[in-house]
Amino acid sequence: MCQLLGMNCNTPTDIVFSFEGFRRRGGLTDHHADGFGIGFFEGRGVRLFHDDKPSADSPVADLVKAYQIKSENVVAHIRKATQGQTSLANTHPFMREMWGGYWLFAHNGHLKNFAPEQGGFYRAVGSTDSERAFCHILEQLRRRFCERPDEHALFDAVADLTAAIRTHGLFNFVMSDGEYLFAHASTLLHYIVRKAPFGEAHLIDDDVKVDFAAVTTPNDKVAVIATLPLTGNEIWQQLAVNELVMFRRGDIVRRRLPENPVYMPVEEGLAVARAAGVSV
Amino acid sequence: MCQLLGMNCNTPTDIVFSFEGFRRRGGLTDHHADGFGIGFFEGRGVRLFHDDKPSADSPVADLVKAYQIKSENVVAHIRKATQGQTSLANTHPFMREMWGGYWLFAHNGHLKNFAPEQGGFYRAVGSTDSERAFCHILEQLRRRFCERPDEHALFDAVADLTAAIRTHGLFNFVMSDGEYLFAHASTLLHYIVRKAPFGEAHLIDDDVKVDFAAVTTPNDKVAVIATLPLTGNEIWQQLAVNELVMFRRGDIVRRRLPENPVYMPVEEGLAVARAAGVSV
Repeated sequence: MCQLLGMNCNTPTDIVFSFEGFRRRGGLTDHHADGFGIGFFEGRGVRLFHDDKPSADSPVADLVKAYQIKSENVVAHIRKATQGQTSLANTHPFMREMWGGYWLFAHNGHLKNFAPEQGGFYRAVGSTDSERAFCHILEQLRRRFCERPDEHALFDAVADLTAAIRTHGLFNFVMSDGEYLFAHASTLLHYIVRKAPFGEAHLIDDDVKVDFAAVTTPNDKVAVIATLPLTGNEIWQQLAVNELVMFRRGDIVRRRLPENPVYMPVEEGLAVARAAGVSV
Repeated sequence: MCQLLGMNCNTPTDIVFSFEGFRRRGGLTDHHADGFGIGFFEGRGVRLFHDDKPSADSPVADLVKAYQIKSENVVAHIRKATQGQTSLANTHPFMREMWGGYWLFAHNGHLKNFAPEQGGFYRAVGSTDSERAFCHILEQLRRRFCERPDEHALFDAVADLTAAIRTHGLFNFVMSDGEYLFAHASTLLHYIVRKAPFGEAHLIDDDVKVDFAAVTTPNDKVAVIATLPLTGNEIWQQLAVNELVMFRRGDIVRRRLPENPVYMPVEEGLAVARAAGVSV
């Protein structure tokens, strides 16, 4: 299974600590060895790094670490190719412009028989189901709203589109426009909101810890979203199966939860992915 | 004046030699110290690096050098901010998707009173005249052609749009869709097509030389486009004022040249840029 990582904060925050644990799953502590990508919003701009080398030993990932980019919204992905040729054009996150702003999208899963009609505004460049799903979401939003709607109309529209797309298979995704970050789980997706009082955190995948109290202010609020928890000494929340949440400035501002939420055990989530032909 | 660099080849080629001379103009041998950007097509994908640090001492530029990315089409830009805040969103090259493929655009110059109506397909994210011009070109192409037209219709349409936009000021640009590379001069733009028999070249801005015979095959054809010649021992061709050329696989396949072409002396070109408020 590919892994997703997202961050949404109320102040520009360095993601290096989380990224270090995440990237080590790209070839060292896990088997996601087909490349990775990470996109950082900086103001209205996006800094995008893609690499088809495994993230654990990618010089691009080294740069991300060395550069200590601070961002309020980050979308990252480690890819184990399951569908579509491994190529730069198929590397997440994908980016498009809508309503005068950039949007980033990364997907973990597999959509069967998902062939929406060709978009008038957005078309896929590569050959993945993931990019098709992203372009379809944007196409439908753009057709419905000529200008960016308020956050409730936006959330409801994304929730409806997501509910339709996930009938085609596994659709874990993270998507951001630089202000909001959407996270949707078909199987496994976890999040944590760090805020004062900040403590120390220990990476699961690496012998690294950080004392967040030393690198934050009392007003900071930082949401981190990941396929599996990245730290071993903090409580991560799991998204229910088919739950969509929308973060803004480190808080969940909207969520759509099934009436009888089911939380998938990690082992089952990995098994489901395997059965769907998504590599784990 | 900002500097432009482009490459269009018939085989994936390492641009490091040209980029090394070019980047040294970003803060060492010249005064383009407000950031830089470079985009490489790799298959249908694009690898895009932006930095708001001067290119001469940018870690991103170091990565570009170390990585030795091979590409058939490259668009790069060193920026001296003259209009619009210096920010990532204003850093060239700009990228959009059209007809299912990515397009890159970098501009050197300044357009006065250029405020085209807001696009239905493409909108600027940042605040530069450059991104507005790029979005306007794509918007008009997309309105005229639902699908990608043949190369002659495409060239003619770009030439007409360019002729209209340049009435607003200085419009040196390089644009590529990964197959074609367009280059247009209002003032200064030079190119060279390297092919067999390959020789040795010496960078003007650095004590570096390369023997292309050792790193090429006899069938290679590599066009390099730059604001000013990058090497001192080769013959670079200058584009005439208001000339548009279109490269494919290292050859010029179409050009539109004024009836009485004028070739601007370098000193005059720099003076014109200065007078138009474009930093030199």
